[in-house]
Amino acid sequence: MKNFEFVNPVKIYFGKDQISKLAGELIPYQKIMLVYGKGSIKTNGVYKQIKTALHDKDIIEFQGVEPNPVYETLMKAVEVARREKVDFLLAAGGGSVIDGTKFIAAAIKYEVGDPWNIVVKNEKISNAVKFGTVLTLPATGSEMNSGAVITRKSCNEKLAFGSPLLFPVFSILDPETMYSLPDSQIANGIVDAFIHVTEQYLTFNMNAAVQDAWAVSLLKVLKTEGPKVLKNRNDYDSNANLMWAACMALNGLLTAGVFTDWSTHMIGHEITALFGIDHAKTLAIVLPGVLTVMQDDKKEKLIHYANNVWEIYGEDEDQLISEVIDKTEDFFKSLGIGVRLSDYNIPETAIDIICNKLEEKNYIKLGEKRNINPEIVKQILALRK
Amino acid sequence: MKNFEFVNPVKIYFGKDQISKLAGELIPYQKIMLVYGKGSIKTNGVYKQIKTALHDKDIIEFQGVEPNPVYETLMKAVEVARREKVDFLLAAGGGSVIDGTKFIAAAIKYEVGDPWNIVVKNEKISNAVKFGTVLTLPATGSEMNSGAVITRKSCNEKLAFGSPLLFPVFSILDPETMYSLPDSQIANGIVDAFIHVTEQYLTFNMNAAVQDAWAVSLLKVLKTEGPKVLKNRNDYDSNANLMWAACMALNGLLTAGVFTDWSTHMIGHEITALFGIDHAKTLAIVLPGVLTVMQDDKKEKLIHYANNVWEIYGEDEDQLISEVIDKTEDFFKSLGIGVRLSDYNIPETAIDIICNKLEEKNYIKLGEKRNINPEIVKQILALRK
Repeated sequence: MKNFEFVNPVKIYFGKDQISKLAGELIPYQKIMLVYGKGSIKTNGVYKQIKTALHDKDIIEFQGVEPNPVYETLMKAVEVARREKVDFLLAAGGGSVIDGTKFIAAAIKYEVGDPWNIVVKNEKISNAVKFGTVLTLPATGSEMNSGAVITRKSCNEKLAFGSPLLFPVFSILDPETMYSLPDSQIANGIVDAFIHVTEQYLTFNMNAAVQDAWAVSLLKVLKTEGPKVLKNRNDYDSNANLMWAACMALNGLLTAGVFTDWSTHMIGHEITALFGIDHAKTLAIVLPGVLTVMQDDKKEKLIHYANNVWEIYGEDEDQLISEVIDKTEDFFKSLGIGVRLSDYNIPETAIDIICNKLEEKNYIKLGEKRNINPEIVKQILALRK
Repeated sequence: MKNFEFVNPVKIYFGKDQISKLAGELIPYQKIMLVYGKGSIKTNGVYKQIKTALHDKDIIEFQGVEPNPVYETLMKAVEVARREKVDFLLAAGGGSVIDGTKFIAAAIKYEVGDPWNIVVKNEKISNAVKFGTVLTLPATGSEMNSGAVITRKSCNEKLAFGSPLLFPVFSILDPETMYSLPDSQIANGIVDAFIHVTEQYLTFNMNAAVQDAWAVSLLKVLKTEGPKVLKNRNDYDSNANLMWAACMALNGLLTAGVFTDWSTHMIGHEITALFGIDHAKTLAIVLPGVLTVMQDDKKEKLIHYANNVWEIYGEDEDQLISEVIDKTEDFFKSLGIGVRLSDYNIPETAIDIICNKLEEKNYIKLGEKRNINPEIVKQILALRK
């Protein structure tokens, strides 16, 4: 196990009717900006619950954060928040709304230039407005971490940033808010969380017994409980298990003491930025390619994955690895997720464009061993036509 | 799954040479009290590492916190700390030193009466001195939670207390500090952590898939890595795995969303208070009795435990449960831990005394269903003669 630091101060309220806890949490704040997306919170009852809990508070609303939240939109929120002297942001929605809120929180206090520098120049965030979240879509884990990804339309860039100042003060996870989500968003969420786990687990063996076993646990929960949710959308316990698994998948516990391989995410971000494909779907396209091409480096963990998550065994290691990658791909397909570029009408010629984009950004050394260069990305994507 | 709140703000530094991180963490503090036990930190190098990291700091030492830390001793530290206007406590040791430091932290600021009220009257802690820990013995998980247990000699009481103000600011876990521990303390630590997990897991089924799977994971890690540590005391990775598993066993993650049964601990505390037996050893005595007597209430989870932790199966449920309780007991014995009252020369007549003590305290309704009354405690202990 390698040395690590771990801290995660986010307070979680989990369960039915927990949105009412907002009242107590927001006592210290005067002017709140409620940030949300297209407005599904108005049809699923979340908006009403928030307004009831905060009936005596001064709330400004900022509606319209997109999936893959866009810098241009978020800067409008920043402008309003600065003008209105907002002292707390409340994100209500899924990972996109929460990620967007993280950017707004940092950008409000970044007054020495264009807040895009935070993202593109990785400038250190020295101050941020405090914020909390009401999660309505389990997927990204953003509700319990300090990272975010945003997109700038004008240059087709989708980039990650983070800071210890960008942990939510609290996050409220009510599984009942999931009942009205479209099936496709549930499926995306399962795949996103699943791949968050594989990227922290399918690297090389660091003898990190707890982290490995917990990763296996989450993958098994996602593969068992995820389909249950899709089959019976109002089954409270399976919704709750999916929501908690997705939250635990990216809160720092699995990364502690091990090396990680975020190449699937990095390649996927380029596909989203260029072609507007849902984040989770890009991951489902890329992951089987990464595991296939990088299987020698990942051999020990892939066999561990085959045995422990999928309970398949075999003497022939190459055969076993091929089988478990197929199983993974089949799992994504069983959720209704396409796993090939062609499933989304992305032509083969896109592969070079994606690789060039990665190269431009110096994202040329991906993977747990920093050996996934553009040539290897080409090999990976060539398998995913 | 039931509703829950979860928060754990403790910052963890894990790994080799992490004690050096003290320098940065203690910058804001002027007067530090270093709290430790009998002095093993002076022979294992921890003391020297602390002094090196804090060479420019004003440090008062308080040596002599006992195993099962004693009110009478801790109050001496409180007196010194008040007089010297200590603004940070640094606990260096195992669970006893950390628990003792939690009491000192709260007691310094409790000025409206005898700080024993915090413990015996469960009075709310409204202020506490900040503290951090350097853990040298994985066992209690106190380094990453806000609870503690202390003993008052004059009345043979061993009682628990806690407060959100009693989370350490940080905890430093360096597995190399374990190399010089006596085998018996490693064995105690394995059993203590193991039973922390069973008390959160072996109750009734709440369909909490992540929590159950994580509990199973920790039990398997403890049962695999624990003996490895005892066999090869300087194997870094198995020490690290044991240390991290014990920390994760009682930091709130396993309790989230489920019911718990702390009866083994409550009964065990009485045995320690009356007969001075090591905490972990009392748990090893009591647990098999609790599981045997309460097996109808715990049936579903005991079968889950048999199948998943011990990989034993069978049609006859009663037989399977009996077998898995024997396996658990054999595991403790394999670590050199006695599992019967008679192993510690505690006579059968003690059973009534223990039950009376519990009854005096109104601890008469223990267990996840609050149905473990003194009569049942008697049945439990009668099996453990």
